[in-house]
Amino acid sequence: MKNTTQDNKSARRPLILVSNDDGYQARGVHCLTRLLQEYGDVVAVCPEGPQSGKSMAITVNDPLRITPVSDYAETEPGVEWYHVNGTPVDCMKIAMHTILHERRPDLICTGINHGSNASTNVLYSGTMGAAFEGCLFGIPSIGFSLCDHAPDADFAPMQPYMRTIIEDVLRNGLPDGVCLNVNAPKGDNLQGIRNTVGCRGHWSDEYREYIDPHGHPYYWMTGRFINDEPDNPDTDDAWLAKDYVTVVRCDIDRTAP
Amino acid sequence: MKNTTQDNKSARRPLILVSNDDGYQARGVHCLTRLLQEYGDVVAVCPEGPQSGKSMAITVNDPLRITPVSDYAETEPGVEWYHVNGTPVDCMKIAMHTILHERRPDLICTGINHGSNASTNVLYSGTMGAAFEGCLFGIPSIGFSLCDHAPDADFAPMQPYMRTIIEDVLRNGLPDGVCLNVNAPKGDNLQGIRNTVGCRGHWSDEYREYIDPHGHPYYWMTGRFINDEPDNPDTDDAWLAKDYVTVVRCDIDRTAP
Repeated sequence: MKNTTQDNKSARRPLILVSNDDGYQARGVHCLTRLLQEYGDVVAVCPEGPQSGKSMAITVNDPLRITPVSDYAETEPGVEWYHVNGTPVDCMKIAMHTILHERRPDLICTGINHGSNASTNVLYSGTMGAAFEGCLFGIPSIGFSLCDHAPDADFAPMQPYMRTIIEDVLRNGLPDGVCLNVNAPKGDNLQGIRNTVGCRGHWSDEYREYIDPHGHPYYWMTGRFINDEPDNPDTDDAWLAKDYVTVVRCDIDRTAP
Repeated sequence: MKNTTQDNKSARRPLILVSNDDGYQARGVHCLTRLLQEYGDVVAVCPEGPQSGKSMAITVNDPLRITPVSDYAETEPGVEWYHVNGTPVDCMKIAMHTILHERRPDLICTGINHGSNASTNVLYSGTMGAAFEGCLFGIPSIGFSLCDHAPDADFAPMQPYMRTIIEDVLRNGLPDGVCLNVNAPKGDNLQGIRNTVGCRGHWSDEYREYIDPHGHPYYWMTGRFINDEPDNPDTDDAWLAKDYVTVVRCDIDRTAP
Protein backbone atom coordinates (compact mmCIF):
# COMPACT_ATOMS: atom_id res chain seq x y z
CA MET A 1 0.00 0.00 0.00
CA LYS A 2 2.82 2.37 0.86
CA ASN A 3 6.48 2.20 0.16
CA THR A 4 8.78 1.37 3.00
CA THR A 5 12.10 3.12 3.00
CA GLN A 6 13.77 0.63 5.25
CA ASP A 7 13.74 -3.10 5.76
CA ASN A 8 11.35 -3.81 8.59
CA LYS A 9 12.35 -7.44 8.72
CA SER A 10 15.93 -6.77 9.73
CA ALA A 11 17.38 -7.95 13.01
CA ARG A 12 16.93 -4.62 14.77
CA ARG A 13 14.25 -4.27 17.45
CA PRO A 14 10.77 -3.55 16.11
CA LEU A 15 9.61 0.07 16.22
CA ILE A 16 6.22 0.37 17.92
CA LEU A 17 3.99 3.45 17.80
CA VAL A 18 1.51 3.89 20.65
CA SER A 19 -1.48 6.15 21.10
CA ASN A 20 -4.76 6.26 23.04
CA ASP A 21 -7.82 8.43 23.57
CA ASP A 22 -7.70 8.93 27.33
CA GLY A 23 -4.72 11.26 27.05
CA TYR A 24 -1.01 10.83 27.69
CA GLN A 25 -1.39 10.82 31.46
CA ALA A 26 -3.88 7.93 31.61
CA ARG A 27 -2.82 4.84 33.49
CA GLY A 28 -3.80 2.49 30.66
CA VAL A 29 -1.37 3.81 28.07
CA HIS A 30 1.56 3.57 30.48
CA CYS A 31 0.71 -0.08 31.18
CA LEU A 32 0.85 -0.52 27.40
CA THR A 33 4.15 1.29 26.84
CA ARG A 34 5.84 -0.55 29.70
CA LEU A 35 4.69 -3.90 28.33
CA LEU A 36 5.74 -3.03 24.76
CA GLN A 37 9.26 -2.02 25.82
CA GLU A 38 10.00 -5.74 26.06
CA TYR A 39 9.26 -6.13 22.36
CA GLY A 40 10.81 -3.11 20.73
CA ASP A 41 11.56 0.59 20.68
CA VAL A 42 8.46 2.50 21.68
CA VAL A 43 7.30 5.93 20.53
CA ALA A 44 4.14 7.14 22.28
CA VAL A 45 2.16 10.01 20.73
CA CYS A 46 -1.03 10.66 22.67
CA PRO A 47 -3.61 13.43 22.99
CA GLU A 48 -2.71 16.03 25.59
CA GLY A 49 -6.10 15.48 27.27
CA PRO A 50 -9.11 13.15 27.16
CA GLN A 51 -10.41 12.45 23.64
CA SER A 52 -12.89 9.68 24.32
CA GLY A 53 -15.60 9.19 21.71
CA LYS A 54 -13.66 10.96 18.97
CA SER A 55 -14.00 8.07 16.50
CA MET A 56 -11.85 8.86 13.44
CA ALA A 57 -12.28 12.62 13.80
CA ILE A 58 -9.50 14.78 12.36
CA THR A 59 -8.63 18.40 13.06
CA VAL A 60 -9.16 20.32 9.83
CA ASN A 61 -9.48 23.95 10.86
CA ASP A 62 -6.93 24.37 13.65
CA PRO A 63 -3.16 23.99 13.75
CA LEU A 64 -1.60 21.06 15.56
CA ARG A 65 1.51 20.88 17.71
CA ILE A 66 3.48 17.80 18.71
CA THR A 67 5.30 18.34 21.99
CA PRO A 68 8.01 16.16 23.57
CA VAL A 69 7.14 14.96 27.09
CA SER A 70 9.94 14.34 29.58
CA ASP A 71 7.77 13.31 32.55
CA TYR A 72 8.42 9.61 32.06
CA ALA A 73 12.16 9.70 31.32
CA GLU A 74 12.93 7.87 34.55
CA THR A 75 10.00 5.47 34.80
CA GLU A 76 9.99 4.53 31.10
CA PRO A 77 13.60 5.17 30.00
CA GLY A 78 13.24 3.50 26.59
CA VAL A 79 10.08 5.29 25.52
CA GLU A 80 9.97 8.49 23.43
CA TRP A 81 6.94 10.44 24.70
CA TYR A 82 4.97 13.19 22.91
CA HIS A 83 1.56 14.78 23.27
CA VAL A 84 -0.57 16.40 20.58
CA ASN A 85 -3.36 18.99 20.85
CA GLY A 86 -5.70 16.92 18.72
CA THR A 87 -7.62 13.71 18.29
CA PRO A 88 -6.24 10.16 18.38
CA VAL A 89 -6.23 10.06 14.55
CA ASP A 90 -4.40 13.39 14.50
CA CYS A 91 -1.77 11.80 16.77
CA MET A 92 -1.24 8.99 14.26
CA LYS A 93 -1.09 11.27 11.25
CA ILE A 94 1.21 13.89 12.70
CA ALA A 95 3.51 11.27 14.24
CA MET A 96 3.89 9.60 10.84
CA HIS A 97 4.43 12.96 9.16
CA THR A 98 7.05 14.29 11.58
CA ILE A 99 9.02 12.16 14.07
CA LEU A 100 8.43 8.88 12.20
CA HIS A 101 8.82 10.29 8.71
CA GLU A 102 11.91 8.20 8.08
CA ARG A 103 11.27 5.47 10.64
CA ARG A 104 8.27 3.42 9.62
CA PRO A 105 6.75 1.57 12.63
CA ASP A 106 6.46 -2.21 12.52
CA LEU A 107 3.46 -2.24 14.83
CA ILE A 108 0.88 0.21 16.15
CA CYS A 109 -0.82 -0.40 19.51
CA THR A 110 -3.51 1.85 20.99
CA GLY A 111 -5.02 1.96 24.46
CA ILE A 112 -5.21 0.41 26.90
CA ASN A 113 -8.59 2.10 26.88
CA HIS A 114 -10.34 2.66 30.19
CA GLY A 115 -13.71 1.17 29.19
CA SER A 116 -15.13 -1.32 26.70
CA ASN A 117 -14.74 -0.81 22.96
CA ALA A 118 -16.65 -3.98 22.16
CA SER A 119 -19.80 -4.12 20.06
CA THR A 120 -21.04 -0.80 18.67
CA ASN A 121 -18.54 1.11 20.82
CA VAL A 122 -15.93 0.39 18.15
CA LEU A 123 -17.64 3.01 15.98
CA TYR A 124 -17.23 5.87 18.46
CA SER A 125 -13.93 4.89 20.04
CA GLY A 126 -10.95 7.18 19.59
CA THR A 127 -8.67 4.30 20.62
CA MET A 128 -10.03 2.23 17.75
CA GLY A 129 -10.04 5.31 15.50
CA ALA A 130 -6.27 5.50 15.94
CA ALA A 131 -5.95 1.77 15.22
CA PHE A 132 -7.99 2.15 12.03
CA GLU A 133 -5.74 5.03 10.99
CA GLY A 134 -2.69 2.84 11.60
CA CYS A 135 -4.30 0.22 9.40
CA LEU A 136 -4.74 2.83 6.64
CA PHE A 137 -0.99 3.42 6.83
CA GLY A 138 -0.56 -0.27 6.05
CA ILE A 139 0.93 -1.06 9.48
CA PRO A 140 -0.36 -3.93 11.68
CA SER A 141 -2.52 -2.20 14.31
CA ILE A 142 -4.16 -3.37 17.53
CA GLY A 143 -6.49 -1.49 19.85
CA PHE A 144 -6.64 -2.72 23.47
CA SER A 145 -9.43 -1.96 25.93
CA LEU A 146 -10.37 -3.05 29.43
CA CYS A 147 -14.05 -3.08 30.42
CA ASP A 148 -13.44 -0.86 33.42
CA HIS A 149 -13.73 2.93 33.31
CA ALA A 150 -11.96 3.50 36.64
CA PRO A 151 -8.87 5.73 36.42
CA ASP A 152 -7.06 3.20 38.65
CA ALA A 153 -8.34 0.14 36.77
CA ASP A 154 -6.22 -3.01 37.15
CA PHE A 155 -4.67 -3.84 33.78
CA ALA A 156 -2.48 -6.67 35.11
CA PRO A 157 -4.80 -9.64 34.49
CA MET A 158 -5.10 -8.91 30.76
CA GLN A 159 -1.37 -8.57 30.17
CA PRO A 160 -0.52 -12.26 29.53
CA TYR A 161 -3.23 -12.30 26.84
CA MET A 162 -1.93 -9.06 25.36
CA ARG A 163 1.50 -10.68 25.08
CA THR A 164 0.06 -13.63 23.18
CA ILE A 165 -1.70 -11.32 20.72
CA ILE A 166 1.24 -8.93 20.29
CA GLU A 167 3.69 -11.79 19.74
CA ASP A 168 1.38 -13.34 17.16
CA VAL A 169 0.98 -10.07 15.24
CA LEU A 170 4.72 -9.28 15.38
CA ARG A 171 5.43 -12.74 13.99
CA ASN A 172 2.63 -13.07 11.41
CA GLY A 173 1.41 -9.56 10.68
CA LEU A 174 -2.22 -8.89 9.79
CA PRO A 175 -4.07 -9.06 6.48
CA ASP A 176 -4.05 -5.83 4.50
CA GLY A 177 -6.92 -3.58 5.61
CA VAL A 178 -7.58 -5.49 8.84
CA CYS A 179 -6.83 -4.36 12.40
CA LEU A 180 -7.68 -5.92 15.76
CA ASN A 181 -10.14 -4.77 18.41
CA VAL A 182 -9.09 -6.49 21.66
CA ASN A 183 -11.25 -6.19 24.77
CA ALA A 184 -10.69 -7.71 28.19
CA PRO A 185 -13.25 -8.21 30.94
CA LYS A 186 -12.79 -6.59 34.34
CA GLY A 187 -11.41 -8.73 37.14
CA ASP A 188 -8.86 -11.49 37.46
CA ASN A 189 -10.92 -14.51 36.45
CA LEU A 190 -9.96 -14.49 32.77
CA GLN A 191 -10.65 -17.76 30.91
CA GLY A 192 -8.70 -17.32 27.67
CA ILE A 193 -8.89 -15.60 24.27
CA ARG A 194 -11.75 -15.86 21.77
CA ASN A 195 -11.72 -14.72 18.15
CA THR A 196 -15.25 -13.50 17.55
CA VAL A 197 -17.40 -10.80 15.89
CA GLY A 198 -18.69 -7.44 17.06
CA CYS A 199 -22.03 -7.70 18.82
CA ARG A 200 -24.95 -5.74 17.41
CA GLY A 201 -26.25 -3.25 19.91
CA HIS A 202 -27.35 0.31 20.51
CA TRP A 203 -27.54 2.88 23.27
CA SER A 204 -30.81 3.73 24.98
CA ASP A 205 -31.92 6.72 27.09
CA GLU A 206 -28.84 8.51 25.91
CA TYR A 207 -29.30 11.92 27.50
CA ARG A 208 -30.22 13.34 30.87
CA GLU A 209 -32.03 16.69 30.74
CA TYR A 210 -31.19 19.63 32.98
CA ILE A 211 -32.69 23.12 33.09
CA ASP A 212 -30.38 26.13 33.25
CA PRO A 213 -31.15 29.21 35.45
CA HIS A 214 -32.83 30.85 32.43
CA GLY A 215 -35.29 27.98 32.00
CA HIS A 216 -33.60 26.47 28.93
CA PRO A 217 -32.91 22.75 28.74
CA TYR A 218 -29.50 21.21 28.14
CA TYR A 219 -28.46 17.59 27.84
CA TRP A 220 -25.64 15.42 29.14
CA MET A 221 -24.84 12.19 27.39
CA THR A 222 -25.49 9.12 29.53
CA GLY A 223 -27.53 6.03 28.64
CA ARG A 224 -27.16 2.29 28.81
CA PHE A 225 -26.01 -0.17 26.22
CA ILE A 226 -28.56 -2.63 24.83
CA ASN A 227 -27.30 -5.90 23.30
CA ASP A 228 -29.47 -6.45 20.22
CA GLU A 229 -28.56 -10.12 19.93
CA PRO A 230 -28.58 -11.38 23.54
CA ASP A 231 -29.14 -15.00 22.45
CA ASN A 232 -26.09 -15.12 20.17
CA PRO A 233 -23.32 -16.89 22.13
CA ASP A 234 -20.57 -15.93 19.67
CA THR A 235 -20.17 -12.15 19.93
CA ASP A 236 -17.60 -10.06 21.74
CA ASP A 237 -20.15 -8.99 24.33
CA ALA A 238 -21.19 -12.60 24.96
CA TRP A 239 -17.60 -13.84 25.41
CA LEU A 240 -16.69 -10.86 27.60
CA ALA A 241 -19.62 -11.77 29.85
CA LYS A 242 -18.05 -15.23 30.19
CA ASP A 243 -14.71 -13.67 31.19
CA TYR A 244 -12.89 -14.22 27.90
CA VAL A 245 -10.57 -11.72 26.24
CA THR A 246 -12.11 -11.04 22.81
CA VAL A 247 -10.34 -10.39 19.51
CA VAL A 248 -12.42 -8.96 16.64
CA ARG A 249 -10.82 -8.53 13.22
CA CYS A 250 -12.05 -5.16 11.96
CA ASP A 251 -12.23 -4.06 8.35
CA ILE A 252 -11.06 -0.61 7.25
CA ASP A 253 -13.30 -0.88 4.17
CA ARG A 254 -16.83 0.28 4.87
CA THR A 255 -18.32 -1.08 1.64
CA ALA A 256 -20.99 -3.67 2.54
CA PRO A 257 -20.04 -7.19 1.42
CA MET B 1 -33.70 -3.68 15.57
CA LYS B 2 -35.81 -1.13 17.41
CA ASN B 3 -39.52 -1.02 18.10
CA THR B 4 -41.54 1.47 16.18
CA THR B 5 -44.38 3.07 18.12
CA GLN B 6 -46.28 4.12 15.04
CA ASP B 7 -47.08 2.68 11.65
CA ASN B 8 -44.55 4.12 9.22
CA LYS B 9 -46.35 2.62 6.25
CA SER B 10 -49.53 4.63 6.75
CA ALA B 11 -50.78 7.08 4.17
CA ARG B 12 -49.35 10.15 5.90
CA ARG B 13 -46.36 11.94 4.41
CA PRO B 14 -43.01 10.41 5.30
CA LEU B 15 -41.06 12.09 8.08
CA ILE B 16 -37.50 12.88 7.00
CA LEU B 17 -34.66 13.85 9.33
CA VAL B 18 -31.81 15.87 7.82
CA SER B 19 -28.35 16.73 9.09
CA ASN B 20 -24.93 17.66 7.71
CA ASP B 21 -21.41 18.51 8.84
CA ASP B 22 -20.93 21.90 7.20
CA GLY B 23 -23.33 23.56 9.67
CA TYR B 24 -26.95 24.69 9.40
CA GLN B 25 -26.10 27.72 7.28
CA ALA B 26 -24.32 25.80 4.49
CA ARG B 27 -25.82 25.99 1.03
CA GLY B 28 -25.75 22.22 0.53
CA VAL B 29 -28.13 21.31 3.33
CA HIS B 30 -30.69 23.86 2.17
CA CYS B 31 -30.62 22.36 -1.33
CA LEU B 32 -31.34 19.04 0.39
CA THR B 33 -34.19 20.27 2.61
CA ARG B 34 -35.88 22.07 -0.29
CA LEU B 35 -35.71 18.95 -2.44
CA LEU B 36 -36.95 16.69 0.37
CA GLN B 37 -40.00 18.88 1.05
CA GLU B 38 -41.51 17.33 -2.06
CA TYR B 39 -41.35 13.92 -0.45
CA GLY B 40 -42.37 14.47 3.14
CA ASP B 41 -42.27 16.50 6.32
CA VAL B 42 -38.71 17.59 6.96
CA VAL B 43 -36.96 18.15 10.29
CA ALA B 44 -33.41 19.50 9.94
CA VAL B 45 -31.04 19.23 12.93
CA CYS B 46 -27.57 20.46 12.00
CA PRO B 47 -24.42 21.55 13.80
CA GLU B 48 -24.37 25.26 14.64
CA GLY B 49 -21.01 25.57 12.86
CA PRO B 50 -18.65 23.60 10.61
CA GLN B 51 -17.99 20.04 11.80
CA SER B 52 -16.14 18.60 8.82
CA GLY B 53 -13.94 15.60 9.52
CA LYS B 54 -15.77 14.68 12.73
CA SER B 55 -16.40 11.09 11.66
CA MET B 56 -18.68 9.43 14.25
CA ALA B 57 -17.36 11.57 17.11
CA ILE B 58 -19.74 12.12 20.02
CA THR B 59 -19.67 14.75 22.75
CA VAL B 60 -19.13 12.97 26.04
CA ASN B 61 -17.89 15.62 28.45
CA ASP B 62 -19.89 18.73 27.55
CA PRO B 63 -23.61 19.46 27.67
CA LEU B 64 -25.56 19.80 24.43
CA ARG B 65 -28.34 22.19 23.48
CA ILE B 66 -30.82 21.87 20.64
CA THR B 67 -32.04 25.28 19.52
CA PRO B 68 -34.95 26.08 17.16
CA VAL B 69 -33.94 28.18 14.15
CA SER B 70 -36.48 30.56 12.62
CA ASP B 71 -34.24 32.00 9.86
CA TYR B 72 -35.78 29.84 7.15
CA ALA B 73 -39.46 30.13 8.10
CA GLU B 74 -40.22 32.03 4.90
CA THR B 75 -37.88 30.34 2.42
CA GLU B 76 -38.55 26.79 3.66
CA PRO B 77 -42.00 27.05 5.24
CA GLY B 78 -42.49 23.29 5.70
CA VAL B 79 -39.16 22.57 7.36
CA GLU B 80 -38.59 22.46 11.13
CA TRP B 81 -35.07 23.81 11.69
CA TYR B 82 -32.77 23.30 14.70
CA HIS B 83 -29.08 23.65 15.41
CA VAL B 84 -26.98 21.77 17.96
CA ASN B 85 -23.66 22.70 19.61
CA GLY B 86 -22.13 19.35 18.78
CA THR B 87 -21.07 16.91 16.11
CA PRO B 88 -23.20 15.45 13.30
CA VAL B 89 -23.70 12.25 15.33
CA ASP B 90 -24.71 14.33 18.34
CA CYS B 91 -27.33 15.99 16.09
CA MET B 92 -28.80 12.60 15.20
CA LYS B 93 -28.79 11.31 18.76
CA ILE B 94 -30.25 14.39 20.42
CA ALA B 95 -32.87 14.83 17.69
CA MET B 96 -34.04 11.25 18.20
CA HIS B 97 -34.01 11.72 21.99
CA THR B 98 -35.93 15.01 22.08
CA ILE B 99 -38.00 16.40 19.19
CA LEU B 100 -38.41 13.04 17.43
CA HIS B 101 -38.89 10.96 20.56
CA GLU B 102 -42.45 10.06 19.56
CA ARG B 103 -42.13 10.64 15.80
CA ARG B 104 -39.80 8.06 14.30
CA PRO B 105 -38.39 9.24 10.95
CA ASP B 106 -39.01 7.14 7.85
CA LEU B 107 -35.80 8.35 6.20
CA ILE B 108 -32.59 10.13 7.18
CA CYS B 109 -30.67 12.19 4.63
CA THR B 110 -27.39 13.97 5.34
CA GLY B 111 -25.47 16.54 3.32
CA ILE B 112 -25.34 17.73 0.70
CA ASN B 113 -21.69 17.81 1.69
CA HIS B 114 -19.44 20.45 0.13
CA GLY B 115 -16.66 18.07 -0.96
CA SER B 116 -16.17 14.40 -1.83
CA ASN B 117 -16.90 11.68 0.68
CA ALA B 118 -15.87 8.95 -1.75
CA SER B 119 -13.12 6.42 -1.08
CA THR B 120 -11.34 6.69 2.28
CA ASN B 121 -13.07 10.03 2.97
CA VAL B 122 -16.08 8.04 4.16
CA LEU B 123 -14.10 7.21 7.31
CA TYR B 124 -13.54 10.82 8.37
CA SER B 125 -16.75 12.38 7.08
CA GLY B 126 -19.17 13.87 9.59
CA THR B 127 -21.89 13.75 6.93
CA MET B 128 -21.41 10.00 6.62
CA GLY B 129 -20.97 9.73 10.40
CA ALA B 130 -24.53 11.05 10.78
CA ALA B 131 -25.77 8.61 8.13
CA PHE B 132 -24.11 5.69 9.95
CA GLU B 133 -25.76 6.83 13.17
CA GLY B 134 -29.13 6.91 11.39
CA CYS B 135 -28.43 3.37 10.24
CA LEU B 136 -27.76 2.33 13.85
CA PHE B 137 -31.23 3.65 14.72
CA GLY B 138 -32.57 1.21 12.14
CA ILE B 139 -33.77 3.97 9.78
CA PRO B 140 -32.90 4.01 6.05
CA SER B 141 -30.10 6.58 5.78
CA ILE B 142 -28.39 8.26 2.84
CA GLY B 143 -25.40 10.63 2.83
CA PHE B 144 -25.10 12.96 -0.19
CA SER B 145 -21.92 14.75 -1.25
CA LEU B 146 -20.80 16.89 -4.18
CA CYS B 147 -17.13 16.82 -5.22
CA ASP B 148 -16.85 20.59 -4.94
CA HIS B 149 -15.72 22.38 -1.78
CA ALA B 150 -16.88 25.83 -2.90
CA PRO B 151 -19.39 27.50 -0.57
CA ASP B 152 -21.43 28.47 -3.66
CA ALA B 153 -21.12 25.03 -5.33
CA ASP B 154 -23.85 24.22 -7.88
CA PHE B 155 -25.95 21.35 -6.52
CA ALA B 156 -28.55 21.50 -9.32
CA PRO B 157 -27.05 18.93 -11.73
CA MET B 158 -27.07 16.14 -9.12
CA GLN B 159 -30.67 16.69 -8.05
CA PRO B 160 -32.40 14.46 -10.64
CA TYR B 161 -30.14 11.60 -9.53
CA MET B 162 -30.85 12.33 -5.88
CA ARG B 163 -34.56 12.05 -6.64
CA THR B 164 -34.07 8.64 -8.21
CA ILE B 165 -32.15 7.38 -5.18
CA ILE B 166 -34.51 8.93 -2.61
CA GLU B 167 -37.60 7.55 -4.36
CA ASP B 168 -36.04 4.11 -4.51
CA VAL B 169 -35.15 4.11 -0.81
CA LEU B 170 -38.55 5.48 0.23
CA ARG B 171 -40.20 2.70 -1.77
CA ASN B 172 -37.90 -0.23 -0.99
CA GLY B 173 -36.01 0.71 2.18
CA LEU B 174 -32.46 -0.52 2.75
CA PRO B 175 -31.14 -3.77 4.21
CA ASP B 176 -30.67 -3.74 7.96
CA GLY B 177 -27.26 -2.31 8.87
CA VAL B 178 -26.64 -0.77 5.44
CA CYS B 179 -26.66 2.93 4.51
CA LEU B 180 -25.78 4.70 1.27
CA ASN B 181 -22.83 6.92 0.47
CA VAL B 182 -23.79 8.97 -2.60
CA ASN B 183 -21.24 11.19 -4.34
CA ALA B 184 -21.71 13.38 -7.40
CA PRO B 185 -19.00 14.81 -9.63
CA LYS B 186 -18.67 18.56 -10.07
CA GLY B 187 -20.11 20.08 -13.22
CA ASP B 188 -23.18 19.51 -15.37
CA ASN B 189 -21.99 16.64 -17.56
CA LEU B 190 -23.39 13.82 -15.41
CA GLN B 191 -23.69 10.48 -17.16
CA GLY B 192 -25.88 8.44 -14.82
CA ILE B 193 -25.75 6.47 -11.55
CA ARG B 194 -23.36 3.63 -10.73
CA ASN B 195 -23.56 1.22 -7.81
CA THR B 196 -19.95 0.55 -6.91
CA VAL B 197 -17.49 0.07 -4.05
CA GLY B 198 -15.33 2.47 -2.05
CA CYS B 199 -11.93 3.03 -3.64
CA ARG B 200 -8.84 2.22 -1.60
CA GLY B 201 -6.71 5.28 -1.08
CA HIS B 202 -4.78 7.36 1.40
CA TRP B 203 -3.67 10.93 2.00
CA SER B 204 -0.11 12.03 1.33
CA ASP B 205 1.88 15.06 2.51
CA GLU B 206 -0.81 15.71 5.02
CA TYR B 207 0.61 18.68 6.89
CA ARG B 208 2.24 21.98 6.10
CA GLU B 209 4.72 23.19 8.72
CA TYR B 210 4.85 26.75 10.03
CA ILE B 211 7.11 28.30 12.67
CA ASP B 212 5.57 30.51 15.34
CA PRO B 213 7.29 33.73 16.58
CA HIS B 214 8.91 31.71 19.39
CA GLY B 215 10.58 29.31 16.95
CA HIS B 216 8.25 26.39 17.61
CA PRO B 217 6.71 24.45 14.72
CA TYR B 218 2.99 23.95 14.22
CA TYR B 219 1.13 22.08 11.51
CA TRP B 220 -1.94 22.67 9.35
CA MET B 221 -3.67 19.74 7.73
CA THR B 222 -3.49 19.78 3.95
CA GLY B 223 -2.32 16.96 1.66
CA ARG B 224 -3.51 15.28 -1.48
CA PHE B 225 -5.49 12.13 -1.97
CA ILE B 226 -3.76 9.14 -3.54
CA ASN B 227 -5.88 6.47 -5.25
CA ASP B 228 -4.28 3.15 -4.29
CA GLU B 229 -6.04 1.22 -7.06
CA PRO B 230 -5.85 3.55 -10.08
CA ASP B 231 -6.27 0.66 -12.53
CA ASN B 232 -9.53 -0.59 -11.00
CA PRO B 233 -12.36 0.75 -13.20
CA ASP B 234 -15.11 -0.16 -10.73
CA THR B 235 -14.60 2.09 -7.70
CA ASP B 236 -16.39 5.24 -6.64
CA ASP B 237 -13.36 7.35 -7.49
CA ALA B 238 -13.09 5.79 -10.97
CA TRP B 239 -16.77 6.35 -11.79
CA LEU B 240 -16.71 9.90 -10.42
CA ALA B 241 -13.79 10.62 -12.77
CA LYS B 242 -16.08 9.48 -15.61
CA ASP B 243 -18.81 11.86 -14.45
CA TYR B 244 -21.09 9.28 -12.88
CA VAL B 245 -22.98 9.72 -9.63
CA THR B 246 -21.78 6.89 -7.36
CA VAL B 247 -23.73 4.88 -4.80
CA VAL B 248 -21.77 2.77 -2.31
CA ARG B 249 -23.65 0.54 0.12
CA CYS B 250 -21.86 0.95 3.45
CA ASP B 251 -21.89 -1.50 6.33
CA ILE B 252 -22.37 -0.37 9.92
CA ASP B 253 -20.66 -3.56 11.12
CA ARG B 254 -16.89 -3.19 11.26
CA THR B 255 -16.15 -6.89 11.72
CA ALA B 256 -14.05 -8.08 8.76
CA PRO B 257 -15.91 -10.60 6.58
